Amino acid sequence: MPDFRAVFFIIGFLLLALAAAMLLPAAIDALAGDPDWRAFSLSAISTGVAGAAMVLGFRQAEPPQLRAREGFLLVTVSWIVLAGFATLPLMLTRAGLDFTDAYFESMSGLTTTGASVLPNLDGRPMGVLLWRALLHWVGGIGIIVIAVTIFPILRVGGMQLFRMESSDKSEKIRPRVSQVSSVLISVYVTLTTICAVALVIAGMPAFDAVCHAMATLATGGFSTHDASVGYFHSPAVEWILTFFMLIAGMTFVLLARAARGDLTWLWHDDQTRWYLLCVLLFAAGMTFWQWEVNGRAFGDSLRSSSFNVVSIITTTGFASEDYLVWGSMPMVMFMVLLFLGACTGSTAGGIKFFRICVVGAVARSQIAHMIHPHRVTLPFYNGLPISDEVVRSVLSFIVFYIATFAAISIAVSAFGMDLVAAMSAVAQAIANVGPGLTPEIGPIGNYASLHDGAKWLLSLAMMLGRLELLTVLVLLSRTYWRG
Amino acid sequence: MPDFRAVFFIIGFLLLALAAAMLLPAAIDALAGDPDWRAFSLSAISTGVAGAAMVLGFRQAEPPQLRAREGFLLVTVSWIVLAGFATLPLMLTRAGLDFTDAYFESMSGLTTTGASVLPNLDGRPMGVLLWRALLHWVGGIGIIVIAVTIFPILRVGGMQLFRMESSDKSEKIRPRVSQVSSVLISVYVTLTTICAVALVIAGMPAFDAVCHAMATLATGGFSTHDASVGYFHSPAVEWILTFFMLIAGMTFVLLARAARGDLTWLWHDDQTRWYLLCVLLFAAGMTFWQWEVNGRAFGDSLRSSSFNVVSIITTTGFASEDYLVWGSMPMVMFMVLLFLGACTGSTAGGIKFFRICVVGAVARSQIAHMIHPHRVTLPFYNGLPISDEVVRSVLSFIVFYIATFAAISIAVSAFGMDLVAAMSAVAQAIANVGPGLTPEIGPIGNYASLHDGAKWLLSLAMMLGRLELLTVLVLLSRTYWRG
Repeated sequence: MPDFRAVFFIIGFLLLALAAAMLLPAAIDALAGDPDWRAFSLSAISTGVAGAAMVLGFRQAEPPQLRAREGFLLVTVSWIVLAGFATLPLMLTRAGLDFTDAYFESMSGLTTTGASVLPNLDGRPMGVLLWRALLHWVGGIGIIVIAVTIFPILRVGGMQLFRMESSDKSEKIRPRVSQVSSVLISVYVTLTTICAVALVIAGMPAFDAVCHAMATLATGGFSTHDASVGYFHSPAVEWILTFFMLIAGMTFVLLARAARGDLTWLWHDDQTRWYLLCVLLFAAGMTFWQWEVNGRAFGDSLRSSSFNVVSIITTTGFASEDYLVWGSMPMVMFMVLLFLGACTGSTAGGIKFFRICVVGAVARSQIAHMIHPHRVTLPFYNGLPISDEVVRSVLSFIVFYIATFAAISIAVSAFGMDLVAAMSAVAQAIANVGPGLTPEIGPIGNYASLHDGAKWLLSLAMMLGRLELLTVLVLLSRTYWRG
Repeated sequence: MPDFRAVFFIIGFLLLALAAAMLLPAAIDALAGDPDWRAFSLSAISTGVAGAAMVLGFRQAEPPQLRAREGFLLVTVSWIVLAGFATLPLMLTRAGLDFTDAYFESMSGLTTTGASVLPNLDGRPMGVLLWRALLHWVGGIGIIVIAVTIFPILRVGGMQLFRMESSDKSEKIRPRVSQVSSVLISVYVTLTTICAVALVIAGMPAFDAVCHAMATLATGGFSTHDASVGYFHSPAVEWILTFFMLIAGMTFVLLARAARGDLTWLWHDDQTRWYLLCVLLFAAGMTFWQWEVNGRAFGDSLRSSSFNVVSIITTTGFASEDYLVWGSMPMVMFMVLLFLGACTGSTAGGIKFFRICVVGAVARSQIAHMIHPHRVTLPFYNGLPISDEVVRSVLSFIVFYIATFAAISIAVSAFGMDLVAAMSAVAQAIANVGPGLTPEIGPIGNYASLHDGAKWLLSLAMMLGRLELLTVLVLLSRTYWRG
């Protein structure tokens, strides 16, 4: 049996942090004289009390020793419980969502998906808008820290490849977390700040700039306006966001190196190179289509194509316009982009380029093996041979990814979502993107009108995708709970 | 360099066989007094002369020694060249197709896909209808023999698992072919005959029965009527075809065992068991939907659901009615079914259950490995551990499958096919199914109205899928042509 006490002890601390975060929208609403500040304060108190009770109730004489077994449970249960408490302001403020909608919105926030059920954003008090941005931002840094420190130990989807130094041989989670997180958090905070400042310089109001910067670095996608980034009608804003979304899709450990002046990884790191190449390819194809087939000006085609391709591939999900009307080829391209994702160790979801590189290398070496069965032909990632364990692990991830996609698509279609709506909604949810590919749930729509059953299934898909599927699915195996 | 002489020598023989096959529709049209017999005879003579020239021109003093290297080339070039010559009757008879359409139809026939560009089937002379059925039937037995004898040596997509006995260690192709094929051919012929007789007993006209029996055992799907099997309005015919399609999706080597009275493999063979389970699951889900949501009678729901689920999963592609109007969940289910396929060593296309079993076993063992990293947790197929070589090989297959699907979908969408049309057309083509999921190309539509560019891309997709992708893709690697 896993050590439940240790798991709940830590979740208690996370709830205390969540309660502290609720004080920010409480303060901003109080300053603006909006009565919602009471709802935020009440939520903060409830969440804080629950957190404190868990910390006190589950504390132990010795500091908890987390191993892989507790890791699976901790990561999964955190997301479920935190999304639960994060619903409080969404239900208690004038946003007034019911529990299903509030949970969908919270899970979408914490998983940095950005699919929303909240209509009429433009008229909302600042508190709720800031709360949504904060959910992204907290969820984003959470997943980066987990991806670098915990997932490699859990061996989730080939991420054991990212056990970096000798000290990483340890199966214990705690020392790793504190060691790496401070660097990552400072990179994250710095980039968010620069992004916000750049947006303000480009003419965006300060509050919008802060919210969009948080949603950008988290590759989340919640905007403060129904028309998303299209609201601002500003090429400068779009280019700035394109740049920062692209950055947010890169490995944060490598971004930390960039801060020390080392940029060689931009072309030496396999997944970064393929990520950038793929962005270039899709943006070029889309630009050409918009220019040649849709007859738009070249600069306009380039900007709108780059923005929306980068937005989807980084799984952010901002929209600068309704790209569903661009025509047949862009539609198919967006459907494909819903699966790719950006780089491991970023805030992006999806399959991610590290895995695409691994399977590509295996496929290439397999072709060579078929031609020369008696020669040794190893697949390589970043110059190192890829072990069979990693191959099996990545294969498992992809199998579960596809199987989950197919099964949940069939399930949501039972609630009346048609083929494109069902498949794009589930694809975006697992990859934590945001918009689907039908007008209702597309870049200028939202998920409010869906059946409650579909909303719960999509919340599940968002969580599964965010936690790299296997972290959660392990808990369904009998072996996990035995012995 | 591969031994071109040997390859072309054998293709010469295959052309002679194709020419002989052309004499059948020539005879039937001559008997019916239809002038098309001249076109068939002319086609037979041209094909026969070309074949004879190749046999004579490339013959060698010693019998040709085919190894893996020649295997890739032989299999790929045969399909390309045979589809080329098979167009002759389609262009020269009153069918009067142009080369693009004729090549699409021939490739669709020989790959046992069953996607058609030929409208107004009901008024056609028998010769052309028989020719389409024959293309299926010849292509079907061709792929079974290749799957059992050549693919295991080529190590295509994990099929090295099917090197059965010690004698199979040989890397030479010829002895295996003659050893196994006679058994398989007799099973194939027997089943086709029984199926045709059963259809006649059920009231189908003899000519239609023969054509449908050939298209069934080949899991092809060309019908002799525009309304496909729906034309006959006969529950008996539908149940008989459901049964024989189900059989045709099973491994023929195991069906040969059944002929000797051994049926234990029905529940001991992993892929057969999962194939049947999956058919049951989808048919049950669809029946329930049709009964409960669409309000159809239970017997009617059961029959129509079973028929069309089996038709798609076996990649046959017959239709008993327009299932595109059944609603949202059946649509998503059909989209998923377009990828699965039936069993390896049958005439079915798609990913196939052998690979689904392998990746499922790997995923299961990986879950166990994540929980107990220090225990050995091997994946098993049919009780034997799955080697890492097979895992890499299956992974490569799936990677190429998905990449080909995505790339060709984007490419055909450039010819104006919308999201569902493009993705379903390419999915059905790679899996050799037949109908797509929009009215135009669906169960009661056909592919005539597509852009020529899309037709060529779909012909390519059919060939890639039929030859398990890697057989063809190997030829694009520089390594293949070197040394």
